[in-house]
Amino acid sequence: MEIHHTVPALRQRLSWATRVVFVPTMGNLHEGHLDLVRLARKHGDCVVVSIFVNPLQFGPNEDYAQYPRTLDADCAKLEGLADVVFAPSVADLYPVEQTMFVEPPPLATELCGEFRPGHFRGVATVVLKLFNVVQPHAAVFGKKDYQQLAVIRALAEQFNLPIEIVAAETSRAPNHLALSSRNGYLSEAERGEAIRLFRNLATIREALQSGSRDYAALEQAARGDLESHGWRVDYLSLRNAATLAPAAPEERNLVVLGAAWLGKTRLIDNLEIALA
Amino acid sequence: MEIHHTVPALRQRLSWATRVVFVPTMGNLHEGHLDLVRLARKHGDCVVVSIFVNPLQFGPNEDYAQYPRTLDADCAKLEGLADVVFAPSVADLYPVEQTMFVEPPPLATELCGEFRPGHFRGVATVVLKLFNVVQPHAAVFGKKDYQQLAVIRALAEQFNLPIEIVAAETSRAPNHLALSSRNGYLSEAERGEAIRLFRNLATIREALQSGSRDYAALEQAARGDLESHGWRVDYLSLRNAATLAPAAPEERNLVVLGAAWLGKTRLIDNLEIALA
Repeated sequence: MEIHHTVPALRQRLSWATRVVFVPTMGNLHEGHLDLVRLARKHGDCVVVSIFVNPLQFGPNEDYAQYPRTLDADCAKLEGLADVVFAPSVADLYPVEQTMFVEPPPLATELCGEFRPGHFRGVATVVLKLFNVVQPHAAVFGKKDYQQLAVIRALAEQFNLPIEIVAAETSRAPNHLALSSRNGYLSEAERGEAIRLFRNLATIREALQSGSRDYAALEQAARGDLESHGWRVDYLSLRNAATLAPAAPEERNLVVLGAAWLGKTRLIDNLEIALA
Repeated sequence: MEIHHTVPALRQRLSWATRVVFVPTMGNLHEGHLDLVRLARKHGDCVVVSIFVNPLQFGPNEDYAQYPRTLDADCAKLEGLADVVFAPSVADLYPVEQTMFVEPPPLATELCGEFRPGHFRGVATVVLKLFNVVQPHAAVFGKKDYQQLAVIRALAEQFNLPIEIVAAETSRAPNHLALSSRNGYLSEAERGEAIRLFRNLATIREALQSGSRDYAALEQAARGDLESHGWRVDYLSLRNAATLAPAAPEERNLVVLGAAWLGKTRLIDNLEIALA
């Protein structure tokens, strides 16, 4: 496995690759990331993982400074799974002041976008930059960041990128907690409580599968359960799985998405719900 | 020379090309365009010319509907100069509603951008789409559209595009009138008058080369000359040639840019001025 830190070095390495599959990450890798990398292997013969904490997608009051940077440990985990690690510095990827951006679609102002203004602009911009650096045939994104996946799919489609976007299922702990770098911020007590977000999503799925259609009541019940256990809920919302528009009454392919604060940690999760 | 109308057909044709050079145009080709294509030939072995009148870069009161579409004549002119013509329909290039855009840099709100809101957003977006379709090694843009060239250079640099941007000198008629598709809108009387825009730019260049530094007075004199001959001036401005920021007092590399209406036709021109 090779590790490259600059764009020219990476391009030189990839100039003789046949089918490149790309997994962009912010590092601090856990099994969820490694599952993305394993899936990437099935889609090409040169797996490139980028490790870059992108300042552009963090708000001024968010955790950019404290976001864990663990490059050596990350590379050790990727050994045998990836072919190339691309770990640029901020100056490598932003050599000049970034004054041009990708303007994301309207859906980027809802859900997480409502609470993290500028987040998806930063995500779409850095992903486009990384795509242009790596020039992959395919790229893997996790459904854990479901709204991000929708934005990236729109990016690829609307900008005519010759890149296949591969969606990976969310990796979960045995108790179903979605794996996330931010789980590392949780205290031991919070780790036990954290599963309540998923449990409420699963409750909504069961209710829908049992024939309930009162979306607002289901959302409100989940929100109430979380808030009564000390969570601060950013959103909890049933949406069309393809467009992320609010779910219509007769929707068959839904996704329920939630974001909520447990102490000082913001957790997100979602669950696709296909109705027969 | 091959003519392709769809993205898949073009990609198939280019999959075996070695060094692609790309010249994006809106068609209605004149000798100025053909000079861009001749220059392209020096930068690669497969010259692709796109012909596409991009709705996204026209304002609601601009000449999108009446912009001349002359594909057969254009292809006849390109025979022997280009290898591939790419002439997509709007539905070919915008198969889904475009809800994501390239947000251009701040300089895009000045000069032409002040008078054509959204123009450079539309230009940058379609050029990025075309770049992703054609995937050229180099692309040629004329200095005639000087501000557009600056936006495209920023696009390539800031989005890490692996594309060399080649700038072509402005092609001019024997009387120095810059070649432009919009010259075709001029009446015979206007065609004689049209050269006054360039003459005023040249007058400013001579004054600067003779030691004048009173930019405001030079700009005002040119504007006055045009207005007294019936022109309506959008802007006439001395700028830093690299950044397009207003020219500093001791600037050595300047460009003077003008845009003005002669009757119902909006003409633009510019002149680089390098001082010793």
